[in-house]
Amino acid sequence: MESIPQLLDFLGVAVFAVSGALAAGRKRMDLFGVFVLATVTAIGGGTLRDLVLDVGPVFWVTDPTYLLICAGAVALAFVGRAALARPRRLLEIADAAGLAVFSVLGTGSSLAAGFHPLVCLLMGVITAVAGGMLRDVIAGDVPLILRSELYATAALVGSATFYGITLLGVAEGNAALVAVGLAFATRCAAIRWGLSLPAFGLAEDDDPGE
Amino acid sequence: MESIPQLLDFLGVAVFAVSGALAAGRKRMDLFGVFVLATVTAIGGGTLRDLVLDVGPVFWVTDPTYLLICAGAVALAFVGRAALARPRRLLEIADAAGLAVFSVLGTGSSLAAGFHPLVCLLMGVITAVAGGMLRDVIAGDVPLILRSELYATAALVGSATFYGITLLGVAEGNAALVAVGLAFATRCAAIRWGLSLPAFGLAEDDDPGE
Amino acid sequence: MESIPQLLDFLGVAVFAVSGALAAGRKRMDLFGVFVLATVTAIGGGTLRDLVLDVGPVFWVTDPTYLLICAGAVALAFVGRAALARPRRLLEIADAAGLAVFSVLGTGSSLAAGFHPLVCLLMGVITAVAGGMLRDVIAGDVPLILRSELYATAALVGSATFYGITLLGVAEGNAALVAVGLAFATRCAAIRWGLSLPAFGLAEDDDPGE
Repeated sequence: MESIPQLLDFLGVAVFAVSGALAAGRKRMDLFGVFVLATVTAIGGGTLRDLVLDVGPVFWVTDPTYLLICAGAVALAFVGRAALARPRRLLEIADAAGLAVFSVLGTGSSLAAGFHPLVCLLMGVITAVAGGMLRDVIAGDVPLILRSELYATAALVGSATFYGITLLGVAEGNAALVAVGLAFATRCAAIRWGLSLPAFGLAEDDDPGE
Repeated sequence: MESIPQLLDFLGVAVFAVSGALAAGRKRMDLFGVFVLATVTAIGGGTLRDLVLDVGPVFWVTDPTYLLICAGAVALAFVGRAALARPRRLLEIADAAGLAVFSVLGTGSSLAAGFHPLVCLLMGVITAVAGGMLRDVIAGDVPLILRSELYATAALVGSATFYGITLLGVAEGNAALVAVGLAFATRCAAIRWGLSLPAFGLAEDDDPGE
Repeated sequence: MESIPQLLDFLGVAVFAVSGALAAGRKRMDLFGVFVLATVTAIGGGTLRDLVLDVGPVFWVTDPTYLLICAGAVALAFVGRAALARPRRLLEIADAAGLAVFSVLGTGSSLAAGFHPLVCLLMGVITAVAGGMLRDVIAGDVPLILRSELYATAALVGSATFYGITLLGVAEGNAALVAVGLAFATRCAAIRWGLSLPAFGLAEDDDPGE
């Protein structure tokens, strides 16, 4: 039987793949282009995590299951595309689920490798936002992190909750489930009710010549 | 004497460098900026491949030949720039040649390292599209992969043809030549006649507020 | 006591963090989003350097000091934001300081690892421009490297000066100070007086259909 973190990892890959497929579909990319963008979105965060922590070949290179999950997610999105009346909103929710999962798993694998807690928190956030950022940059969308509704903050909620709960001695699998749920709820609530932290608020002062 | 894959690698670097120089030239970057963009385009895909497969310092760090090829390609493009009446079209053709070469070499080096065929196919495609994607994102162009004419698909044609032919026992060098030719022809035909796969076709449904 | 290269490294991280915070503030990102963008800008170049040279876990993963410096720089920028009447110009100056520092340190660490001088020069330039490029791409700004005022060229000035002076037998710390100063002066002079190298000057010839 697979462990809870393993299942969460598969789930995160699947939902990010769906979000990538939706972004690609909205840009009218062709079928194989959709698969490539979905896959880059799904494995981008974990690839960055494995590169930075220097753990050898990245996870999807040694286990093709991840690519099969991406292919399945794209096929599902394609079959069900007639039902996708509002792909942008669905993309944001799939993105929120991936964000929540990868913030917790990114922090968890860094903690397991023995790094400083501050590093592990940032590692969780960067792992969580990297895949979606690649998706948005490639698809020419405004990165979701620039839209203010608690995006990076929701990832921090996931990372910090997981770290805090495991400090209390809770089993890793249970801590992960709670932390993922809290991060996902934070981001969804922020989307639904337009919640945001105070903004930095500098003026745009660009020269006319720019 | 150099082997065929080695010569193809040099060729791929050279044509991608030319495509980067053309993209930079169209943005009126200065001479050294042109060299930097050309080099990043030329070595970006292979750098990503080496990082993901974790083979030690990336290829151009251990062999400066690649950087000299980039410098030569930029010099050639600069000398011949008066003849470049339609740099966009030339950029697309140079990009198609690089795409074809790197899809085959990316797959070949992954197969040689013993990874799962599915991984090797995707690795070929990602290696092939990464350099051009960096070029387009840095230069502020719409990534070619978003233009529908069989872009990622042509890379898959190269990867899959190479894998298929080597399975039949054909020597690697010959298989590479055939696969590169087929991928290049696919992409050029798609540009010339506007061929495309069916698109995913989701509606744009952005809120007015976006 | 810390060595000069170490102090320069901290300085480079701090000024790039400030530039990232200013870019994020101009886009009205929320406070934690500002911290993430500042940090990615500050550690992006060094992360790429460590990945390409394959030196194990990247520098900030093994020493949390860097993340604390980023947090401090963001806090300072936030406290002092009322005084930032022209954040764009300050961003460019902070960016110039980071560019100068990382061009020299990127070259220095590549030389120390024994790579070919040509590789070390390019490595310095790429390390110097990568963090700012990530910042601009994520924030949706036009990358500074596309604005012609001796951007990549100033990084080359830093790299080449450092290499040249150390060849003459000057101690590394002193060589680094001179090279950083010269690169910074080059870039600032170029901003102030609009200096530029000759541009490549290709026509834009896009088809109407693009």
